[in-house]
Amino acid sequence: MARVFNFNAGPAALPLAALERAQKELLDLGGTGMSVMEHSHRGKAYEAVHNEAISLTRELLAVPENYDILLLQGGASQQFAVIPMNLLPQGKSADYILTGSWSQKAYKEAKTIGTARVAGTTEKDKKFARIPKQSELELDANAAYAHITSNNTIFGSQWHEFPNVGSVPLVADMSSDIMWRPIDVSKFGLIYAGAQKNLGPSGVVLVIVRKDLVAAGRQDIPVIFQYRTHSENNSLYNTPPTFGVYVLRNVLDEFKKLGGLAAVEKINREKAKLLYDAIDERSDVFSAPVERESRSTMNVVWTVKTPELEAEFISEVQKKGMVGLKGHRSVGGLRASIYNAVPVEAVKALADAVRGFKK
Amino acid sequence: MARVFNFNAGPAALPLAALERAQKELLDLGGTGMSVMEHSHRGKAYEAVHNEAISLTRELLAVPENYDILLLQGGASQQFAVIPMNLLPQGKSADYILTGSWSQKAYKEAKTIGTARVAGTTEKDKKFARIPKQSELELDANAAYAHITSNNTIFGSQWHEFPNVGSVPLVADMSSDIMWRPIDVSKFGLIYAGAQKNLGPSGVVLVIVRKDLVAAGRQDIPVIFQYRTHSENNSLYNTPPTFGVYVLRNVLDEFKKLGGLAAVEKINREKAKLLYDAIDERSDVFSAPVERESRSTMNVVWTVKTPELEAEFISEVQKKGMVGLKGHRSVGGLRASIYNAVPVEAVKALADAVRGFKK
Repeated sequence: MARVFNFNAGPAALPLAALERAQKELLDLGGTGMSVMEHSHRGKAYEAVHNEAISLTRELLAVPENYDILLLQGGASQQFAVIPMNLLPQGKSADYILTGSWSQKAYKEAKTIGTARVAGTTEKDKKFARIPKQSELELDANAAYAHITSNNTIFGSQWHEFPNVGSVPLVADMSSDIMWRPIDVSKFGLIYAGAQKNLGPSGVVLVIVRKDLVAAGRQDIPVIFQYRTHSENNSLYNTPPTFGVYVLRNVLDEFKKLGGLAAVEKINREKAKLLYDAIDERSDVFSAPVERESRSTMNVVWTVKTPELEAEFISEVQKKGMVGLKGHRSVGGLRASIYNAVPVEAVKALADAVRGFKK
Repeated sequence: MARVFNFNAGPAALPLAALERAQKELLDLGGTGMSVMEHSHRGKAYEAVHNEAISLTRELLAVPENYDILLLQGGASQQFAVIPMNLLPQGKSADYILTGSWSQKAYKEAKTIGTARVAGTTEKDKKFARIPKQSELELDANAAYAHITSNNTIFGSQWHEFPNVGSVPLVADMSSDIMWRPIDVSKFGLIYAGAQKNLGPSGVVLVIVRKDLVAAGRQDIPVIFQYRTHSENNSLYNTPPTFGVYVLRNVLDEFKKLGGLAAVEKINREKAKLLYDAIDERSDVFSAPVERESRSTMNVVWTVKTPELEAEFISEVQKKGMVGLKGHRSVGGLRASIYNAVPVEAVKALADAVRGFKK
């Protein structure tokens, strides 16, 4: 079968060139006579891949030298626990801004470890259809850190301007929009992202963390969960998910070839505009519930006038080779995840289907 | 380049057929038009792979119904912490039997969480050259569990008969010898194994755990680390390492095609005999330091009379396409890891080189 137009929310589409490279080398990495999966993580061949994944991350995001770049396991869900284990000592409190399911999960997990408080949120009964304004936040100036989820995969909203949290370290779960555009990393204390939406396959989580936070991290937790362990060992303290890191490297290399994150952003903005414009144009049938200034460029969420029309639309686009468009089970409706690796032609095809539906 | 004879200690050789299957399907899993890496972990295509990996594990190891089979992340090193987090409540103590580096690491990590004691060990200054006898163990009849490392990758020793720990749950790190032969799973409370030696790529850890231990596990730890979370969600609470699980499935399918673990054991015993016999025969140059009844069938460790001869031997076998034979940096000498996926012909070639060296 031909490759489909993949709008999955994660794991999600990967750049075809990155996959083709993996396929070509699968039995023999660079003339070594072994698959990358069969190489020792302490050997030169894998080490080169590992270090390239890290250096490409540093280059693409212009990560300052006072930040560590760690490649870990367990996904963002594990970081929900590991972040407070490291950064939330007894006697301190952490701020959480709730804008959807994932930030709620992060907040709940933090409460199993220490004191966490809600520093802002928007209307849950309106499906978090907007990002809070700076003036709505009630920040604790003494917080150990302030946590946000930069993009809400399920509800389809996104922080387009990050909150000002003063001197408190800003911690951001960027799983679903990491590297969608250039950002100023120096505004953050810690950035984390499961790779499986915008960067690569599942099983790798990227953590970018300020070195002073690593150094000040708690030492009374298991060694494996201390950021310093992985920082001191270049993420090779224990065996990393070598194939996942390898595919991540391939994906980052494609972003670089495109011209870096400025070029990636241009394409992403074009894709988002194509689709939102089509939905807005067909307001007789479709409706995007998220407030305009909070709309996600990564996960376009919209609804259809009737369940019958929704089923008809899904069936129609499926016939055109588009998959992964059903909204999250907790929200319903439709969702198109148009991450970095989703090509413009896929979004064009979908926008055309929206525009032409029942005409 | 032709595929080499790979004696790496882990990540290690994988069955060629399992890799070829992955290569063939890399851009299109079963006519879905997507790579397995691009499929949602909640979709039918991935779910079939996931469930097959679990059911093949149950079938190959004859895992009783009162055991959960979990596919997790973070490797065995993370389980060093997660096991006591779940199974070692305050007021209880856990027994650790130390037979090498990995059991020492497991013990150290347990002490960051609760009370752990050494219930037996052998001579560290003799590089743990044997497994302790039952009569040497000082077991705590009230221990929360008793922990062993079934095979010592670095020192090359292996438990051929498991210790009798009475009614205390026996917990075993089987990372380097899981599925090398059939075992009676009902003798264990919990078995865990990083996949990257005997089962598949790195980034997946297999946990087989008695359901009553899961149910009795601590609830005051983060949700992500509770075994019950993953048990209740069929290891789909958060995104699993989907490609790793897929390759694991491919590998297990090869074991099944061979005739199951009885057939795997026969081949493994043949390989180990080939190599140890050759080393013993050439006692003028080579020497295997581990006591005969404790010798590992997975990691054959031996030394060479002089550093010059060692360098010469390594250079000679490298020319014959054999890699990964240098001993662990903490032990020196030579080590051949002859896990399930290392073919008999590779071990024959190595045994021939040993037998013919300097003749």
